[in-house]
Amino acid sequence: MNASTLSVALIHHPVYDKQRKVVATAVTNLDIHDIARAARTYGLYRYYVVTPLQDQRTLALRIAGHWKEGYGATYNPKRKEALELVEVIDSLDAARQALSAETGAEVKLVATGARLTPDTAYEDLAAMLAVPGTAYLLLLGTGWGLTEELLEQADHLLPPLRGAGEYNHLSVRSAAAIIFDRLRGDK
Amino acid sequence: MNASTLSVALIHHPVYDKQRKVVATAVTNLDIHDIARAARTYGLYRYYVVTPLQDQRTLALRIAGHWKEGYGATYNPKRKEALELVEVIDSLDAARQALSAETGAEVKLVATGARLTPDTAYEDLAAMLAVPGTAYLLLLGTGWGLTEELLEQADHLLPPLRGAGEYNHLSVRSAAAIIFDRLRGDK
Repeated sequence: MNASTLSVALIHHPVYDKQRKVVATAVTNLDIHDIARAARTYGLYRYYVVTPLQDQRTLALRIAGHWKEGYGATYNPKRKEALELVEVIDSLDAARQALSAETGAEVKLVATGARLTPDTAYEDLAAMLAVPGTAYLLLLGTGWGLTEELLEQADHLLPPLRGAGEYNHLSVRSAAAIIFDRLRGDK
Repeated sequence: MNASTLSVALIHHPVYDKQRKVVATAVTNLDIHDIARAARTYGLYRYYVVTPLQDQRTLALRIAGHWKEGYGATYNPKRKEALELVEVIDSLDAARQALSAETGAEVKLVATGARLTPDTAYEDLAAMLAVPGTAYLLLLGTGWGLTEELLEQADHLLPPLRGAGEYNHLSVRSAAAIIFDRLRGDK
């Protein structure tokens, strides 16, 4: 049996907006592309784009599909390899079930965010990934972050990303890349 | 005297295109925003957006200016803090001179890229950053990467970013975030 797998879910709902209202954010081209390329680079198993809105799922499928099957697949085959990891899905529960069915492994949810109290260090999770048998699913929030309700479902809470000082307002694309590198980078 | 400073220059010319022709790439909104936010998070000193094309410099100034002084500065003051690091400039030489004049320190150029042969490990450069007296300027290439001519000017060559296996086609935004975290992250 191989090492555990690492997957990522980009959550467009439920997340907070600036006023801490629970909303569904819009799918963006760059979130799909940048996170797919980083996910492929760091050997992730699956990249779920999660939104309950049908028109947003259609848009996400079109963005990924252009490079997977359309003109883009011929123009840039490297992009195709990355976007093959993308699965567009309507809820976190559905992603969890799909991942469990595909891998046959127990799914553990891993969350991070700028304000939470962590319980698992990056290096500890990296070590856990080397042990077989688990499908880890990293939750990334769009907008102003994952709701409390989602954070309560997480099995592991990673520390907020910190650089120098108090400012930490990374894009979700940057945060994804850094987290993958901390967990899986060959330094 | 404080520790050395770390700055970044996003090079739009000279870089290669897909056919290894030397070109000037287009400035993009997301490159400016994402890298500025990561630069602020990791305590960088300056973020130079380098392009010799006047219309592209005008565009870059407009993108940064909206959030620094326009409506955006009030709507999202955190974005303003990040974009204050941005300086739009016409060449790497000009960036180097500006940085030297502002800091009074010797400027050392640091490059990375997917294909180069490295001579400085990330942890070694991180240690060098803790020693006062130098202004390190990290060069990031857009398009298909920095030209050989630019790489030859670099004082330090960092290893290509590697995850799992051979695939490494990160966006320049993701690469920037990961490099800042490797050099300056509080893990």
